[in-house]
Amino acid sequence: MVRIVVALGGNALLRRGEPVSAATQRNNIRHAAKALAQLMVEGHQLVITHGNGPQVGLLALQGEAAGKSAFPLDVLGAETEGMIGYVLQQELDNAYTEPAQFATLLTQVEVDPKDPAFGSPSKPVGPIYSEDEAKLQAGQRGWSVARDGNAWRRVVPSPRPVRILEIEVIRLLVAQGVTVICTGGGGIPVAQRSDGAYVGVEAVIDKDHASGLLATELNADAFLMLTDVSAVFTDWGTPAQRALNDVTPEELAALDFEAGSMGPKVRAACDFVNRTGGLAGIGALADASAILAGKAGTRVRPAPQSDAVDPG
Amino acid sequence: MVRIVVALGGNALLRRGEPVSAATQRNNIRHAAKALAQLMVEGHQLVITHGNGPQVGLLALQGEAAGKSAFPLDVLGAETEGMIGYVLQQELDNAYTEPAQFATLLTQVEVDPKDPAFGSPSKPVGPIYSEDEAKLQAGQRGWSVARDGNAWRRVVPSPRPVRILEIEVIRLLVAQGVTVICTGGGGIPVAQRSDGAYVGVEAVIDKDHASGLLATELNADAFLMLTDVSAVFTDWGTPAQRALNDVTPEELAALDFEAGSMGPKVRAACDFVNRTGGLAGIGALADASAILAGKAGTRVRPAPQSDAVDPG
Repeated sequence: MVRIVVALGGNALLRRGEPVSAATQRNNIRHAAKALAQLMVEGHQLVITHGNGPQVGLLALQGEAAGKSAFPLDVLGAETEGMIGYVLQQELDNAYTEPAQFATLLTQVEVDPKDPAFGSPSKPVGPIYSEDEAKLQAGQRGWSVARDGNAWRRVVPSPRPVRILEIEVIRLLVAQGVTVICTGGGGIPVAQRSDGAYVGVEAVIDKDHASGLLATELNADAFLMLTDVSAVFTDWGTPAQRALNDVTPEELAALDFEAGSMGPKVRAACDFVNRTGGLAGIGALADASAILAGKAGTRVRPAPQSDAVDPG
Repeated sequence: MVRIVVALGGNALLRRGEPVSAATQRNNIRHAAKALAQLMVEGHQLVITHGNGPQVGLLALQGEAAGKSAFPLDVLGAETEGMIGYVLQQELDNAYTEPAQFATLLTQVEVDPKDPAFGSPSKPVGPIYSEDEAKLQAGQRGWSVARDGNAWRRVVPSPRPVRILEIEVIRLLVAQGVTVICTGGGGIPVAQRSDGAYVGVEAVIDKDHASGLLATELNADAFLMLTDVSAVFTDWGTPAQRALNDVTPEELAALDFEAGSMGPKVRAACDFVNRTGGLAGIGALADASAILAGKAGTRVRPAPQSDAVDPG
């Protein structure tokens, strides 16, 4: 048995462009839960995180349609941890037929109020607007807005996760063999004021970075990031496109993934491997077992120590 | 130190008629958290539940305003457990200055699909309608609707809570000294299908009954229901109105609270006292400590055993 932190990408829970209806969401989560239950059948202990991008967007849109009561991003994040966490726990419990304890825990992740991300909002959230609408909203609400593809959207800061406030409780549950769902959507973003109190902040924490911090803090044996793409590719979208199978953080550092959505995953994988010496895997949800078995996806491991190879 | 299950009434979190804005909700929750932190300062261990009526209503209204994606009541319940639980945990952590561990746990509560409540929906939820609108909605969506005061609303079944699915995890956390927030809104209503799988149901479980089940399962020393009324009264609203201070379940059973909102609280209190022999208290949020100290509110205790009074 190994202890695995599994991060379910938003695209593994909701296909790109698919509407967020209760039925669609539940069907997709059921599909994901079957893949996770298989890992449990193989004897692994899971700690599960998940994305929430489309769901936060929907709740923001609903709040706007109601014409008032638009909730801040920390509260919307907490709502999605409840909504997605519940359905995921229920479907996982249904898919895994052996007796098991599950816990879905609301999770706050602390960020640094001095993080430079607060000065340059970059993460698109919520509904799409025309340029004129976006600029009107920006003026009325004090938002930052930016072009996102053909449309305009609100953009918010995406600061680095510093600390998971509930980490001791998560450790306690994991030590007792409980399958924990936590740190959904990268965690509820909070910061500590000068008087010591914690307050929510208008930000969205990158899910892969927050999940990597969780995996590091738990000293997990493996950290799997599951999405709708089968591996990390070099030269993506060109004739030279090639899947990476077994790589070291050093080899990945020599490549450039900034442009693609794989950038945060690659950095989170390298951070985890460099800090713990564990295995990080990136690949398709359906390949979860195969990634662990070395038969699919991209697997990031430390470079072999030269003194171990040649003890001399 | 005593172990106390504290149920925060919806009216303790949001004054009657007050709009559900993020700021109002946070201010009221902060006020409640200060009262709870005082109980912790006095050395008590708390397990905290809360209502969610206004919040479920708001989310249902937002979903309707968006014109699609109306989520079922189990999912809306899970969202409110996230939203309220997060703010409550954060404000409690801020109000209690000693080191402490907190955990907010998504909680499913099983009901019996054969519960007679499914045949007679009675609990109003969501926005208010005119009679015509209500009947139109009922026809289009298969809802039951009923008059609620001067307006019409959707009504849903309110079945009895049978089992708290996460009770073992809650016990584990409580045994480790963690302050747990759980079973929000009476719990996410679920039922077991004939194939053994759990599914959400369109229902709202009474918060006081679910909290009483939790207090009984945890064998709590005390079960406090905190609201915006200072005690249980007989002859409420008449010149003969009188607050009940120390009463037994037998004395309460001889009175009639069906008409008032105190009915579920009185029944939940009696159930808890009869099953555990503990103390149940009903009263105002601000009086929490005084209720425990016997100086405020209504306190329900078992009748003294006659053989203990007169050992012969």
